Amino acid sequence: MRIYIAGSGAMGCRFGYQLQQSGQEVILLDNWQDHIDAIKQNGLKIVGDKPDCVKMTIMHPTEAHETADFIILFTKAMQLPQMLEDIKQIIGEHTKVLCLLNGLGHEDTIRKYIKEENILMGVTVWTAGLKGPGVAILQGKGSINLQSFDTCGKESSAQIVDVMNQAGLNVIYDEDVLPSIWRKACVNGTMNSTCALCDCTIGEFFATEDALHTVRAIIHEFCEVGIASGVKLNESEIVDYVMHVSEIAAPHYPSMHQDLVQNHRLTEIDFINGAVARRGRKLGIQTPYCQMITDLIHAKEHILGISK
Amino acid sequence: MRIYIAGSGAMGCRFGYQLQQSGQEVILLDNWQDHIDAIKQNGLKIVGDKPDCVKMTIMHPTEAHETADFIILFTKAMQLPQMLEDIKQIIGEHTKVLCLLNGLGHEDTIRKYIKEENILMGVTVWTAGLKGPGVAILQGKGSINLQSFDTCGKESSAQIVDVMNQAGLNVIYDEDVLPSIWRKACVNGTMNSTCALCDCTIGEFFATEDALHTVRAIIHEFCEVGIASGVKLNESEIVDYVMHVSEIAAPHYPSMHQDLVQNHRLTEIDFINGAVARRGRKLGIQTPYCQMITDLIHAKEHILGISK
Repeated sequence: MRIYIAGSGAMGCRFGYQLQQSGQEVILLDNWQDHIDAIKQNGLKIVGDKPDCVKMTIMHPTEAHETADFIILFTKAMQLPQMLEDIKQIIGEHTKVLCLLNGLGHEDTIRKYIKEENILMGVTVWTAGLKGPGVAILQGKGSINLQSFDTCGKESSAQIVDVMNQAGLNVIYDEDVLPSIWRKACVNGTMNSTCALCDCTIGEFFATEDALHTVRAIIHEFCEVGIASGVKLNESEIVDYVMHVSEIAAPHYPSMHQDLVQNHRLTEIDFINGAVARRGRKLGIQTPYCQMITDLIHAKEHILGISK
Repeated sequence: MRIYIAGSGAMGCRFGYQLQQSGQEVILLDNWQDHIDAIKQNGLKIVGDKPDCVKMTIMHPTEAHETADFIILFTKAMQLPQMLEDIKQIIGEHTKVLCLLNGLGHEDTIRKYIKEENILMGVTVWTAGLKGPGVAILQGKGSINLQSFDTCGKESSAQIVDVMNQAGLNVIYDEDVLPSIWRKACVNGTMNSTCALCDCTIGEFFATEDALHTVRAIIHEFCEVGIASGVKLNESEIVDYVMHVSEIAAPHYPSMHQDLVQNHRLTEIDFINGAVARRGRKLGIQTPYCQMITDLIHAKEHILGISK
């Protein structure tokens, strides 16, 4: 199976590496020139649980030409439209596309390029890091929940699940994946924006009752908007889940902190809290906490001179 | 007239200096030892419009013993209860007390120590800075609006207005000072907390439509709560005023930025946005923007290791 990883950062490298090791033809796509050069010259270096170094094919998205059997989308949220535009030449009649991006609402973008029966929406708890160009840090275990966007596609996605499981990716076909996607968005919506704004680790933010008031208010808005959109969400279960993740992840800076504070890059806020605020407006549901944190993150992007 | 300045930071020094120059007996009260030592040793140095150096009496609040004719309260908001406790020995039957603190709700604290007919509530647009211990920067002009808290005190406060005007302080007896106090609180509530959180100048924060959405939402909550409390506020007039001040003050960091970011001191947030959120709860009015920014500022105080 010819598999493209569209967006080969840390997570893309993990999935591409595991799939190639299991015997699939894998092509990494990315636009970070240093990363491309490093992998072309030295192969992909793996550090962490099982150090390794393997030759892998990597290129710019626009350089890809052979029709894909399967594409895993793993860009930053705001890079998705450009990525889809750049790879439309490899999307065929039967190309399956799995979206594993953080955040909400990506299906609306993907449907412009892919037939609904070929779209898979998913969420993963695998993790990965980059030590630098061409060097991925792979530690621990994870899993992926995914579902065909359209019930017509369920049968034909069985092959995708098989291929990914042969690569040890622990994929579960989920008859209702949206609650898991929203639950992960809640984790990001309570940790990413807050820690980026307050310049702190997850544990530092979650340490006071004041901060937890904000956390609970954000989760409440996600649940109100999600439930009104037909997603089966249990607010108290999500609060418990977020608190649990905040303990495990306490010493870490979330990805939005890395983007905004450490690297002065645009954030994914419009696809996390901003997506809930947007959908809330359409549904007539007030989301002041999501709206305010979105506005403040955008203000901070502007203050740091990061432009769209 | 024996006048105490209870809280002799930049603004306290300005008022104390002008009152002493006009012939009054002025005693500065403060707890900052370096500031006390500097003024005792070298006098109060004035830089700015009219450089000067004058001998002034300064001491710790607990060292004051002679009954006051008039006390100007000019502490940071959270220091007010301790200050009143420390100076209760100088409060007599006829001691007038003028509150010029930033923020809302101080009357509730002052009434525990001072008869209502002796309380004056005020607001000022004078400014001042400190260049270091014992050195005040005095530039520009200003004015003070004040009103007796209790109509019984109006007549006897005429003398206070006279004395302050002889010192060039441009005092207006305002038949309804609360709208001005709330209007200034709106300025602080939209600039202080936001710039402290985003680590930026007023101009940097007010530069985007995203940020202005937050500004307008905060003003709306101040007005809803203020109007429900009987204060005559005109929301669109206040929006215009805040925008006007934001242009004049664009290059500056507001005082809460100086407290939190620059000096790692506790902020006055509970007396600005926090006061509106508290009063909103009592009145059954939702104030998510004020509540969230209060929670985030407290979270940041905790992250910086500042304890109450």
